[in-house]
Amino acid sequence: MNEKLWDLIIIGAGPSALTAAIYTAREDMSTLMIEKGVIGGLMATIDKIENYPGFPEGIEGLTLAMDFQAQAEKFGAQVELAEVTGVLREKDNFLITTDAGDFHARSVLVSTGNEYRKLGIPGEEQAHYCATCDGAFYRDKKLAVIGGANAAIQEAMFLTKFATHIDLIVRSWVKASEILQRELKGYIEQGKITLHEGTTPDEIVIKDGQVTGIATHQTDKPEQKETFDVDGVFVFAGVIPNAKFLTGSGVEFDNVGHVMTDHELMTAVPGVFASGDVRSGATKQVASAVGEGTTAALNIREYLNDLDKKNDA
Amino acid sequence: MNEKLWDLIIIGAGPSALTAAIYTAREDMSTLMIEKGVIGGLMATIDKIENYPGFPEGIEGLTLAMDFQAQAEKFGAQVELAEVTGVLREKDNFLITTDAGDFHARSVLVSTGNEYRKLGIPGEEQAHYCATCDGAFYRDKKLAVIGGANAAIQEAMFLTKFATHIDLIVRSWVKASEILQRELKGYIEQGKITLHEGTTPDEIVIKDGQVTGIATHQTDKPEQKETFDVDGVFVFAGVIPNAKFLTGSGVEFDNVGHVMTDHELMTAVPGVFASGDVRSGATKQVASAVGEGTTAALNIREYLNDLDKKNDA
Repeated sequence: MNEKLWDLIIIGAGPSALTAAIYTAREDMSTLMIEKGVIGGLMATIDKIENYPGFPEGIEGLTLAMDFQAQAEKFGAQVELAEVTGVLREKDNFLITTDAGDFHARSVLVSTGNEYRKLGIPGEEQAHYCATCDGAFYRDKKLAVIGGANAAIQEAMFLTKFATHIDLIVRSWVKASEILQRELKGYIEQGKITLHEGTTPDEIVIKDGQVTGIATHQTDKPEQKETFDVDGVFVFAGVIPNAKFLTGSGVEFDNVGHVMTDHELMTAVPGVFASGDVRSGATKQVASAVGEGTTAALNIREYLNDLDKKNDA
Repeated sequence: MNEKLWDLIIIGAGPSALTAAIYTAREDMSTLMIEKGVIGGLMATIDKIENYPGFPEGIEGLTLAMDFQAQAEKFGAQVELAEVTGVLREKDNFLITTDAGDFHARSVLVSTGNEYRKLGIPGEEQAHYCATCDGAFYRDKKLAVIGGANAAIQEAMFLTKFATHIDLIVRSWVKASEILQRELKGYIEQGKITLHEGTTPDEIVIKDGQVTGIATHQTDKPEQKETFDVDGVFVFAGVIPNAKFLTGSGVEFDNVGHVMTDHELMTAVPGVFASGDVRSGATKQVASAVGEGTTAALNIREYLNDLDKKNDA
């Protein structure tokens, strides 16, 4: 049943995967996407995307995801809902194992994205995880930023472009680079950021659907509670690339677990490519994911052409 | 009047430029695009774009260009119609000279695209210049491909995916790599491509708005004329990157004249970035140009932040 040899199997069905599928299916390469969760990936969960070019009024992430999917399917790309458990080379081809059986492909594109590490506190469904995406919605508002590593410090400073004041909440203490710490000091002295070290967030307080504050306690004194009035909360607790299933495949990872690629978006395993948020160096933007999906598709076409020539020779 | 110091001046207003402007303007960086021709660049000239994700039914290039522009202007980006004549460093900033006066910026993005080299024959307004973009419109049709260098041979073979037959018209003789010539031989033997060397195209024949043929003469015997019946014509006579105004700026070029960048899309001149079709290595797709515009914008933000820190220190 699954004995079909696909020209390309794409693991994931987010914006980068769907873009690659639009390109490869349109050029008559048989293309299957295997997705374990939601078509559209993280993009489908975004209320309003303001910076994907082509939609001056912004567009709901789910709507955009459905448009991407319709476009890929129009050209013949297919989607299978399953969780991939492994990618193995078999001669010139690949065996992709899933919880719904095995699949075979001549090339593989890993576009599985990443997840934001969650705090697991009440109200977190209202939190933001991307300052470049959502910062501009908080012009002249007050924000809380949660996290103490490089990303949290950097993004907190960036968010002062929009917000009048930021409560920076750090469970233990700031663990950022010396340069960032020095910079942060400047923002604190100017009163733009207030630093709360040793402070654990308990709940994002929501009234009538609006964020009104962040409830916390002192990490070493649980009875010492404090709530800060803010209009929004950004959480920077790290990302988890969806790439564990590639362990043992020969693909290489950076120290966070993102997939390493060369400038043609090929991994250390010839024939296995990666694009979008799962890729080391990705900018985590829909527009970039789309660009990388395009580049990956064109390079996969070249790879398969070269394979054909080799086999003809 | 033009004494204003812009955070970013973008030279060009095609898809890559407009995307970068959406990002930088949305983050309150003062952003000016300087365009000598048409807002939207080559994209604005495309009848129907089928492979820019988000538009399952396809979209007219001009409509998409106007949407991109509306989105960039909504966030405060501005457009000046002028032709840039030079980019000069002045201390930490840049002087951009144009036929409408001088402009000053802290950073520069070159997104001027390229032009397709034209044949200059009647009917050429109906020719195509990008197989990846327009090949799929010619399923089960007959095509002529004009050109004899690597790109023409490669694209002619690619177009056999769609077209039933291709007349390959070469003014002198095929000047492609040995590997490509060997491959081409296979296509000729299979009857998919007919090679016409020493053949000069005279006119793309159009009846009732439809291409019906390509009229030619023997290059060394002008009176020897022949018309081939085809449904479409693709011209691959090379591209001309719009980058001459950068001569002497310190920016480096590849052998075709495209601008060289590092993996952060910065040129050899710190503070001058390049994205889209003008960049060496670009894939010449709207979706890629958009992705590169995004990446450039985020890296320009970093560059300006670093500059601020240096000046604060």
